[in-house]
Amino acid sequence: MQNNQNSSPQNLPIGVFDSGVGGLTVLKVLANHLPDEHFLYLGDSARLPYGTKSPQTIRKYSEQALGFLADMGVKALVIACNSASSQFRESHFRDIPVENVIDPGAVTALRATQGRIGILGTRATVTSKVYESALLELAQSKNRKVEVFAAAAPLFVPLAEEGWIDDPITNLIVFRYLQPLIQQNIDTLILGCTHYPILRASIQRAVGNSVSLIDSGEALAENLRKKFDNQVLFRRNPAEDLGGSEQSKSPDPNLNPQSNRRIDILSTEESSTFSSMARRLLGEKRIDSIKVVNL
Amino acid sequence: MQNNQNSSPQNLPIGVFDSGVGGLTVLKVLANHLPDEHFLYLGDSARLPYGTKSPQTIRKYSEQALGFLADMGVKALVIACNSASSQFRESHFRDIPVENVIDPGAVTALRATQGRIGILGTRATVTSKVYESALLELAQSKNRKVEVFAAAAPLFVPLAEEGWIDDPITNLIVFRYLQPLIQQNIDTLILGCTHYPILRASIQRAVGNSVSLIDSGEALAENLRKKFDNQVLFRRNPAEDLGGSEQSKSPDPNLNPQSNRRIDILSTEESSTFSSMARRLLGEKRIDSIKVVNL
Repeated sequence: MQNNQNSSPQNLPIGVFDSGVGGLTVLKVLANHLPDEHFLYLGDSARLPYGTKSPQTIRKYSEQALGFLADMGVKALVIACNSASSQFRESHFRDIPVENVIDPGAVTALRATQGRIGILGTRATVTSKVYESALLELAQSKNRKVEVFAAAAPLFVPLAEEGWIDDPITNLIVFRYLQPLIQQNIDTLILGCTHYPILRASIQRAVGNSVSLIDSGEALAENLRKKFDNQVLFRRNPAEDLGGSEQSKSPDPNLNPQSNRRIDILSTEESSTFSSMARRLLGEKRIDSIKVVNL
Repeated sequence: MQNNQNSSPQNLPIGVFDSGVGGLTVLKVLANHLPDEHFLYLGDSARLPYGTKSPQTIRKYSEQALGFLADMGVKALVIACNSASSQFRESHFRDIPVENVIDPGAVTALRATQGRIGILGTRATVTSKVYESALLELAQSKNRKVEVFAAAAPLFVPLAEEGWIDDPITNLIVFRYLQPLIQQNIDTLILGCTHYPILRASIQRAVGNSVSLIDSGEALAENLRKKFDNQVLFRRNPAEDLGGSEQSKSPDPNLNPQSNRRIDILSTEESSTFSSMARRLLGEKRIDSIKVVNL
């Protein structure tokens, strides 16, 4: 019966928004965690990076992107970009539930830490202090004490995009940015930008193996999967509200095999780099379309 | 009499467009060369950098910016950004003369070189090969032989914006990017991005003092001043066409003292960094207004 409900809210894709290609690392994890769900990804490559822009501009661009995905028809929205998440913390956009990358990152960091948490982010994310607020609020609610230290690392995105991975120059820059956090004896470090996991090896080397690295994208995917299990992210289907709750649970993989799920990708600029990076990150077979759109 | 001609084309400002704050270095030189002219500067900070974007996107954004300045009323348009210049080479936009940064840079480099020219630019500028074409065409017209070598330096803009000037890490990065050009025994190097003069000391150290560095912004200002002297950049005033050409020459400084000239700055995003950088680059007294606009 569910197979025929193509127009029901459950069959709509999950909309994932990022300032560019970085959020595809998040989409990949989401796709692994939710093998039966359709995904519609929007990368605002034409206007990246967001991390150096003003709060007003980031907010405006984020609302445009969320509005675009909402118009396309999605059952949930995921903001994969930390800088965008820092300026859009609401739980809903036009009645559609929104998942940002900050809160799951904060939850996971608090679970890992002994009490001293470092945050590495873009200038926009660090200036917004959203991770600090989320962490301190969360710690208070759990009667825990944490100290939080943040550092902006504006060169990490261009370094990752330049592909200077495991490079002596990158190691020097990583060490310079991390020095103030290392001096604070952090035990946990939030990688507060989708690009930073690309430099993970250099970062781990700089802070040492005793420091836990928290990938916010991973944390978000884990969080989203749990919400799906609890049906929180499903739009209500009135017909199903009349029946039992068991039937309306997340789609049965047997009724909706993986080969039927779609991953469609939209980018705000024509770019062969974007397409090849997307295919490299997600595997060629899994992308159903890549299109250019104007926001 | 000229004092009352406020609505005549001559009294309109010169529109200067850049992807951000970098073009203010060009505006500064222009303002020095043309002390009686009004300037209207538009920095598309919200969407910077242009140098990593696709040709189509750069072209689209450039046309939007030129259109905006044209609507405001300008007598000439200057594209201070190399990446934008590489995608808009036309001599006019809606009948308004357009000056780009590529051609003057090529002319100055050809004048300086013994025959081996290096070009340092953003990925967009280098991929477009506009400097190569301009240089080779120009050399052919003068019966000269030149060899041209180009290198992209994607990290220079974020390094300059991070303020890591005269820094050991910057020196390492500069040397890495310049190594292929140094091996080609270049004698002249075009700094093909408005940000690069900020790293001039490091660049000069890497290539050695025997290599001439060409600042395209400087070259453009010099070129524009000459065109003004030759009246090429003035819009025709029909009334003046009837009179002698001497009267319609560039404004008499005595009739239009420097204190009367305006420098108005527009940016596509609210940014205290932009404002403070603008004031630092141009001197507080000389800026009449800084406003945020939407393109």
